[in-house]
Amino acid sequence: MLRGSNLAEFKMPEISFASRFPSPKKWGPHTLVIFDSILLKNANAKRWLKSFPKSYGVKAGEKLKDIKQLSQHIEKIVALAEGIPARQMTIVVVGGGSVGDFGGFIASVYKRGVRLVHIPSTWLAVIDSAHGGKTALNVGGYKNQIGSFYQAEEIVVVRELLISQPKERLLEALNEMTKMSLIEGGAFWKEMVQADQLSEEGIWTWIAMAIAAKYEVVKKDPFEKSGLRQKLNLGHTMGHVIEGLCGYSHGESVGHGLEFALEWSAQKYKFRDAVWFSQALNRIQIQKTKAIRLPSKKIQSALLQDKKRSSKNMVNFIFIRKPGEVVIEAVSVQDILREARRQGLCS
Amino acid sequence: MLRGSNLAEFKMPEISFASRFPSPKKWGPHTLVIFDSILLKNANAKRWLKSFPKSYGVKAGEKLKDIKQLSQHIEKIVALAEGIPARQMTIVVVGGGSVGDFGGFIASVYKRGVRLVHIPSTWLAVIDSAHGGKTALNVGGYKNQIGSFYQAEEIVVVRELLISQPKERLLEALNEMTKMSLIEGGAFWKEMVQADQLSEEGIWTWIAMAIAAKYEVVKKDPFEKSGLRQKLNLGHTMGHVIEGLCGYSHGESVGHGLEFALEWSAQKYKFRDAVWFSQALNRIQIQKTKAIRLPSKKIQSALLQDKKRSSKNMVNFIFIRKPGEVVIEAVSVQDILREARRQGLCS
Repeated sequence: MLRGSNLAEFKMPEISFASRFPSPKKWGPHTLVIFDSILLKNANAKRWLKSFPKSYGVKAGEKLKDIKQLSQHIEKIVALAEGIPARQMTIVVVGGGSVGDFGGFIASVYKRGVRLVHIPSTWLAVIDSAHGGKTALNVGGYKNQIGSFYQAEEIVVVRELLISQPKERLLEALNEMTKMSLIEGGAFWKEMVQADQLSEEGIWTWIAMAIAAKYEVVKKDPFEKSGLRQKLNLGHTMGHVIEGLCGYSHGESVGHGLEFALEWSAQKYKFRDAVWFSQALNRIQIQKTKAIRLPSKKIQSALLQDKKRSSKNMVNFIFIRKPGEVVIEAVSVQDILREARRQGLCS
Repeated sequence: MLRGSNLAEFKMPEISFASRFPSPKKWGPHTLVIFDSILLKNANAKRWLKSFPKSYGVKAGEKLKDIKQLSQHIEKIVALAEGIPARQMTIVVVGGGSVGDFGGFIASVYKRGVRLVHIPSTWLAVIDSAHGGKTALNVGGYKNQIGSFYQAEEIVVVRELLISQPKERLLEALNEMTKMSLIEGGAFWKEMVQADQLSEEGIWTWIAMAIAAKYEVVKKDPFEKSGLRQKLNLGHTMGHVIEGLCGYSHGESVGHGLEFALEWSAQKYKFRDAVWFSQALNRIQIQKTKAIRLPSKKIQSALLQDKKRSSKNMVNFIFIRKPGEVVIEAVSVQDILREARRQGLCS
């Protein structure tokens, strides 16, 4: 069945790489920047953000995405944007995942949609959340219940901004990068397999390849109609459980979730490169995932929570047969628990 | 400049005419109806609404569209829809303009968009607001600041429901109908010109023709990118002023606004059918518009309010040269006031 009957065509955003902060004048006089206010701690970023004609700083995090806060934010943004003709307005969003979800949603509904530019400020956002057009807000503790599919017209990757971010965040982001290379299974996969160290130049090549790999999937199913886009969830079913129960960062949790999915794929689909994964983690200095042990009851209730959107107690789990060959299969919560026991994740 | 880069294609909704309320099972087991709770006063409508698996009643009016109320509504709707897989969900909206704007917005953002069906319950909604995919909410007293372009997959015109509405509302709606026939300028226009009475059968023919005429415009500019869709605002510039200052209904205000626009078009573009309009009003029993006299200061500030979204103190005014030939022209607020004085609308 179709969802969103008017969302029928996908337009590829323009993606550019800049070493320095781009001129705020680039998008014309009617630009409003929505940014993560933590960036004001960085003198360069602060100077740049303050040079936008209109700016709106927000505190990043899940609370920003709470629908309860929306009306206050919108009222301030409407007041700030007063007098700007909608057709000439551009919203530039500078931030990580939560700021991108929030700012993208605002751009998609303000005056029924204005131009949107993403400037991701975190390593995870630059390879993942800034791309693909998903925006989201939370409702009463449930994540991403409200949102839109709204592609940015432009995404600018700013080295100067990213390099100021902590290196451990980059290491975490490499888990999502690894996921993308496994899904891609071609030149990017080879690049990752052959990597024996984490070089400055290597990172930028990988980022470009990870972004391209994501769009290869997104453009075939931009509005999640065919289900194909679900393959991007590789490693995320157990990843989300671990993120919720252990409070690890998203990137680190995805690392654990990937290990789980690859090991299960080795068992079930004779995926032969699972060993490579942990070797690669060591080689390229991704932080070694700690051994985790969780009560099976807690895993179960987290899985049931996660799958509120799916039907019949089943979860679409993403397996991998070989790099580039992903299998989406409906499994029961019990199947997942059995495998978690086998892998020693719970007793 | 493009707005909303992902909104590139328009899909014509399915429009059907039914004499009786359609079966609530028509849209599957995962249907949620959002309805104007005033309809519960009608026994037939009440029985029908209560037979939907899940229903959410709202009080119609501008307050429903206030962004301040959104989070409470959404929390209740999320709770009500718990367990429904987004891909299988249909939101059926039963109501007039404000309920349609609200329910359409909810459908466009709930789980990033679910199937939407409109069942207009007012004469105005059936010929106008249920069509064209505009949804809207108000922010801090400003109308329609937030919204989306989101086409319904289906619009069902239910005679049984509409006939229960007051006849004076139908008379008011005939003003929008007249507007559509003037914009269309072909078979529909001839039908209206030749009408000498208001017959039951005639109404349904006109409704079908008015809807078709609206889609002829909408499909050429579904996301208001080219500006062509503005022609639907014929009669609305002064109509909105009168609606705001005199508190008349939207339909009646548009009648006054049309008179103003046609008379100005006669003056400026030698539009020859202005006389027809008042003759037709009498012939088909549209209530005769009362003479209005307003302080020019108030007209001026209302115009400035209305054009907050436009640029440079100019308003895009819709003139008509002859039926089917509309002229969109930027005029100044002063030009409008001068014409209002000439027509005796103010001193």
